[in-house]
Amino acid sequence: MNAWRYECEICGHHEEIDTRLWCCPVDGGAFTLSGPNTLAPEHIDLEEPTLWRYASLLPVQRPDHYSLGEGLTPLVPGTLAGRNVWLKNDAALPTGSFKDRGAAILVAHLASLGLDRLIVDSSGNAAAAMAGFCAAAGIGCTVYAPANASPGKLVQARAYGATVIPVEGNRDAVASAAQDAVDNDPSSFYASHNWHAVFVEGVKTWAYEVWEQLGGRLPATAFIPAGGGSAFVGGRRGFDAVPGKLPALIAAQPAACAPISLAYESDARDIAAVTPGDTMAEGTKIGAPSRGRQILSALRDSGGWAVAVTEDDIAAALRELWSQGLYVEPTAALGAAAFVVAIRDGRPIPEGDTVVLLTGNGLKATETIGELLG
Amino acid sequence: MNAWRYECEICGHHEEIDTRLWCCPVDGGAFTLSGPNTLAPEHIDLEEPTLWRYASLLPVQRPDHYSLGEGLTPLVPGTLAGRNVWLKNDAALPTGSFKDRGAAILVAHLASLGLDRLIVDSSGNAAAAMAGFCAAAGIGCTVYAPANASPGKLVQARAYGATVIPVEGNRDAVASAAQDAVDNDPSSFYASHNWHAVFVEGVKTWAYEVWEQLGGRLPATAFIPAGGGSAFVGGRRGFDAVPGKLPALIAAQPAACAPISLAYESDARDIAAVTPGDTMAEGTKIGAPSRGRQILSALRDSGGWAVAVTEDDIAAALRELWSQGLYVEPTAALGAAAFVVAIRDGRPIPEGDTVVLLTGNGLKATETIGELLG
Repeated sequence: MNAWRYECEICGHHEEIDTRLWCCPVDGGAFTLSGPNTLAPEHIDLEEPTLWRYASLLPVQRPDHYSLGEGLTPLVPGTLAGRNVWLKNDAALPTGSFKDRGAAILVAHLASLGLDRLIVDSSGNAAAAMAGFCAAAGIGCTVYAPANASPGKLVQARAYGATVIPVEGNRDAVASAAQDAVDNDPSSFYASHNWHAVFVEGVKTWAYEVWEQLGGRLPATAFIPAGGGSAFVGGRRGFDAVPGKLPALIAAQPAACAPISLAYESDARDIAAVTPGDTMAEGTKIGAPSRGRQILSALRDSGGWAVAVTEDDIAAALRELWSQGLYVEPTAALGAAAFVVAIRDGRPIPEGDTVVLLTGNGLKATETIGELLG
Repeated sequence: MNAWRYECEICGHHEEIDTRLWCCPVDGGAFTLSGPNTLAPEHIDLEEPTLWRYASLLPVQRPDHYSLGEGLTPLVPGTLAGRNVWLKNDAALPTGSFKDRGAAILVAHLASLGLDRLIVDSSGNAAAAMAGFCAAAGIGCTVYAPANASPGKLVQARAYGATVIPVEGNRDAVASAAQDAVDNDPSSFYASHNWHAVFVEGVKTWAYEVWEQLGGRLPATAFIPAGGGSAFVGGRRGFDAVPGKLPALIAAQPAACAPISLAYESDARDIAAVTPGDTMAEGTKIGAPSRGRQILSALRDSGGWAVAVTEDDIAAALRELWSQGLYVEPTAALGAAAFVVAIRDGRPIPEGDTVVLLTGNGLKATETIGELLG
């Protein structure tokens, strides 16, 4: 018996966990997943040093023939703006970003459905994560990427054996090309990290780990980089698994692409699409996040906020992290920048532990970082 | 009372652990360290998820004000040349290479002696590792690097706040410049990963971890990339801590720079210096390893061997690792290449577990990897 079920975030339509639909067939809304989500020591395999220690709370079982050692990243003490914070360093994951959490679970799930070729659209960390776990699982991966994506960003996916197909046009054109490819090849599957609800079930484990690493205590506040929003809604889903007050969740975006922040400021019911401007936080250049309702309800329910930070704020936060030995890429500094901005603006921070999620490795952005250093 | 003491690998001269000498004052030989080295569950802090779980077997205590979450990297199942092996993935360490193990311990040790500026010589992973842990510890770091080192390789060290000083000439000229700088500034210290014995005490933890991760069992064989030899002699020191047969230790070098392999083949008592040729395994371009006697005795005592592999062997091993989701840099594939060569040559591999050490992250070598992929 499988207790897992998809539910449309807009109309509430249900689908079973073994469906091949990746969004609601009624209105195209993003799915959420309902299933067991109660975090307690008896649900954790304490001997297992990866995110599969939470297998009883995941929609798929641990693959028996491979592992990349995914999960259980360091939670280390640090300081930002003179305050003590906890830094959750997901740069330490196997392919170098938090997306490994979602990719590990999504690839295992789709492989268990018998799929052997996944089609994804991404120009960066998600491409690497999906390609890496497809390689480990022994299934094929095709990446549709913007023609103007930095070739360096795609080297990693190609090394894992993925086929990379460049697409002219904007991010929507890339997604359309990927979906068209799937329509033309029924043996393949559109495994979108931005759409698939199973991806979020993997990402939620960062919050599970934080709870464990704090000795079974919820933090009071979590600052989270937000583009498509999977780290953000994953955090909400993870912290929801513990009885007690949901931490205030702060969605940090670059000012050049801040649709979540704009919707939050105007108290909108949905997130309106924007045209992304130029930002060094390239992982968050997503003008139309697909999980809008989930993001806005997490903001509302947690008493958190969304904030747009400037390029200068990001650069300053990067330097503060690097100077503590934490080498992260620009996108990964958004949460830290949002914390510093909050302190500077005199915004009240809830008492208790503050966690800042670091999403990706600085080694992914050598060129940009070299330019910043001059 | 401190049970740790330095001993010259050539003449046996002793120094206390708090000395500022980094090599033997009698004959310039490399030091080894003697101290507690018996690995058993009661000597491990099982609650500590970093290499500091072995603090009772290290010459320095865990720093109380910082951590980068160093150690406990994945040991994952893989295949090479159709055989099952264990892949120990030190690419997952905080700065992206096994050198973090040595840097974590050496920086903590030198900080405990009151030093607040370290001078190192390196063009790559050691520079990043030392700079990263100096940043975490809050002490200064100056890196002397070859003027022709790839600027990309040094971006990471600079981001951590290290001062990078380019030096014209070969690797010896760089080391001399670093040592001269120390002579001119008595408040600084030459913290050489190639010379300092405390560095090896950190590196040995990879072998401790392998023993734990195999369920308290020694592997039969370990394939190890070897340049300066710290991963190799660290492996010997780590496996020595367990009663039982020392695993056969295989030192893998690129044919373009293989002084260890040459000395092994000719049954020499010391390693003769060579002029490094061109190789993509740039982390092992060390013509005159400083720990020659320790390396040769580890080869002899373990029943292992040293081998020089070609650039084609390295490229093939890289592809085999990448295709399993393990994104490593060329230097890190040397051990895997040596294993494949041994199988191809029909060399008998001892029965039991085979471990292959992966030393560094592929994200450090995007340019080289892009060229390999074409």
